[in-house]
Amino acid sequence: MKTDLDGLMQAQNVDALLVSGPAKHNPAMVYMTGGANLTMGHVIKKRGEPAVLFFAPMERDEAARTGMVSRNYMTYPQFRAALQGDLDQHAAMLQAMLKDAGVTGGRLPFYGDVNAFRHYGIVARLLKLMPDLRVADSAEDDVILNAMSTKDEGEVARIRRMGQITTEVVRATADLLMSSRVKDEVLYQADGEPLTIGAVKRQIDVWLMERGAENPEGTIFAIGRDAGVPHSTGTESDVLRLGQTIVFDIFPCEAGGGYFHDFTRTWCLGHAPDEVVKLYEDVKTVNETLVAELEVGKPFFHYQKRTCELFEEMGHATVMSNPGTEDGYVHSLGHGVGLKVHELPMCSYQPNGGQTNVLTPGQVIAIEPGLYYPERGMGVRLENTYYITPDGKFENLAPYPMDLVLPVKR
Amino acid sequence: MKTDLDGLMQAQNVDALLVSGPAKHNPAMVYMTGGANLTMGHVIKKRGEPAVLFFAPMERDEAARTGMVSRNYMTYPQFRAALQGDLDQHAAMLQAMLKDAGVTGGRLPFYGDVNAFRHYGIVARLLKLMPDLRVADSAEDDVILNAMSTKDEGEVARIRRMGQITTEVVRATADLLMSSRVKDEVLYQADGEPLTIGAVKRQIDVWLMERGAENPEGTIFAIGRDAGVPHSTGTESDVLRLGQTIVFDIFPCEAGGGYFHDFTRTWCLGHAPDEVVKLYEDVKTVNETLVAELEVGKPFFHYQKRTCELFEEMGHATVMSNPGTEDGYVHSLGHGVGLKVHELPMCSYQPNGGQTNVLTPGQVIAIEPGLYYPERGMGVRLENTYYITPDGKFENLAPYPMDLVLPVKR
Repeated sequence: MKTDLDGLMQAQNVDALLVSGPAKHNPAMVYMTGGANLTMGHVIKKRGEPAVLFFAPMERDEAARTGMVSRNYMTYPQFRAALQGDLDQHAAMLQAMLKDAGVTGGRLPFYGDVNAFRHYGIVARLLKLMPDLRVADSAEDDVILNAMSTKDEGEVARIRRMGQITTEVVRATADLLMSSRVKDEVLYQADGEPLTIGAVKRQIDVWLMERGAENPEGTIFAIGRDAGVPHSTGTESDVLRLGQTIVFDIFPCEAGGGYFHDFTRTWCLGHAPDEVVKLYEDVKTVNETLVAELEVGKPFFHYQKRTCELFEEMGHATVMSNPGTEDGYVHSLGHGVGLKVHELPMCSYQPNGGQTNVLTPGQVIAIEPGLYYPERGMGVRLENTYYITPDGKFENLAPYPMDLVLPVKR
Repeated sequence: MKTDLDGLMQAQNVDALLVSGPAKHNPAMVYMTGGANLTMGHVIKKRGEPAVLFFAPMERDEAARTGMVSRNYMTYPQFRAALQGDLDQHAAMLQAMLKDAGVTGGRLPFYGDVNAFRHYGIVARLLKLMPDLRVADSAEDDVILNAMSTKDEGEVARIRRMGQITTEVVRATADLLMSSRVKDEVLYQADGEPLTIGAVKRQIDVWLMERGAENPEGTIFAIGRDAGVPHSTGTESDVLRLGQTIVFDIFPCEAGGGYFHDFTRTWCLGHAPDEVVKLYEDVKTVNETLVAELEVGKPFFHYQKRTCELFEEMGHATVMSNPGTEDGYVHSLGHGVGLKVHELPMCSYQPNGGQTNVLTPGQVIAIEPGLYYPERGMGVRLENTYYITPDGKFENLAPYPMDLVLPVKR
């Protein structure tokens, strides 16, 4: 939680933070500003002090809305030259900004989505100007990511709202498919054209936007062989055909950039072949078994191992026995969800991944077991997002049926 | 143009490029991959050689779609440790990837939207591993940005299509305002609630998405005092009131991240006060004068100076006479438009900004003079995006009326 920041900084001996970049779709900046509408900015937080926001003159109103202590870039004579790419002036401006925030040295992590082109040169110059400054960049030094791993009530409410929007859009998508006309095992649109993956995805985009959500990282809506490759987002021109697995993985965030939700269902239109039903039952069984076993205080990694064991008992290859496998269980069980669609806790991290990867009240985690057989043209994944309540319960933030077969009009 | 890359690399003595990050909303990666659907990736291009794409195993299909020479990260034993934040292993993997792309030293710029947290540490370690490697990061070394500054026919067609969508949405917005019910100088929605800035902006989001566009950097729809602050995006709860300036600056890109368009109109609902009409006429006159004067071969900066001169003759303060002014002409005249909403050429760069900031066939530029008087509650900006044709003409890519007053229902 954000209120943990000073404590985490103290524990890691981190003296200050420096966040840069725009405030949209830039999680560290959104976290520190509460979601300002800034095309550029810096936040410097000295341990034990309120964070200071640095802003461009034309964005003074947006900066003021944050309620943060703030300073206009125009107070720095280096600003214009820095904007035009002068790295010496840029480093000198950062030094002056740090000084104004009370920072003259110590261990400091850099944050933000930045342009790689100049970043190394700027930091290298800053380190020359400030011999007492050290870059803190070990995994344990990532105090913002660690703070983000548990959520306060307001954050959970926002993720829950995204979950509600997600399931509304999933239901609308199911209704669209179930109400489409079928001819020769293929779905058709009202205009007589076959319904394609591309057409469904464009409709999903609009339904999300109508509800105040967007999908900056896309949506996976993949059929047949594509469904057998976890990150295949689907082929735009593929038609929707009965009896093939459709993996529908939807991970929208608040419009303008904010909290995410993560959710997956696997569908077969009209009917499902026996081998698909078997695959679905295996994934559903593991999903339900795992969720029932989840316990606060256990490393998330424990459940990744457990998932591999369960799938191997069922006869599937997994990344435990065969790290490079493309058949069977080929990814990890889950991840934290928040301002990033993938954040802490991570279940792929070994137990030495630290305390942050232990299941803890306040975390929001996606659980997404899946099985993939691309050469047999099928894949199944079932995913829900859970909030770990203060009393250690795992609450599904967006309940929705897990049915495999969607009946169609005959 | 992309075909200029090798020549630009040669001219700058740049031996190779390294681009990293996701392929969505990451201009350098979109440019080098042609818009792949990758959540992570690297592109390394040695001068004179085709670019090589490095991809995650689950994204092999998306990588294959690019048609690029490509390599799976799984071929590097350091991959898993690097993913989990081990900076030594990350640097060792980059060294191996560079070697596989034929790069063992030389001058190399880094590209891509990256996470600042680890970037410095990774590059510092890589430089230790590869003593013959130098980071190229002067403005002139930015060969990708320089290549992007002129567009081929396909790129211009995509920007033109975004312009068409933009004007469709602007027209729909005007229709919404003009057809709203008016009571006591305020616009009302069909449900009896006042029409707010927030409601209009949400409708704009949906209209864009329905047409295959999105606005990752937001939309400026600001009224009254907000219109007097160039980057104020507007206050969600403000109602739409007759006779106040509305600055409507819309800069959408292709859905999923791609080419942008940039466009601004200023409207007054029902009627315009005399002082607003005067301000509007001044901006319109400068806009038309400037556009008629634009000539290939002149530095873009020349026209920024010229705009300041014209506005000062009209009695307005400008950034030329008073760099910190918040009244009058407070920003720059324009910028290139492409995969970034602001890219080269830049008119704020002094003549020493180099050849790329000289107006050249193939460039696409936004021209956006404006005048702002926040304390008098008004601002006016008029912006169009122009393509500089091979024969040196300046073609407005999305013509649309510049009228100030939108008539409303009485």
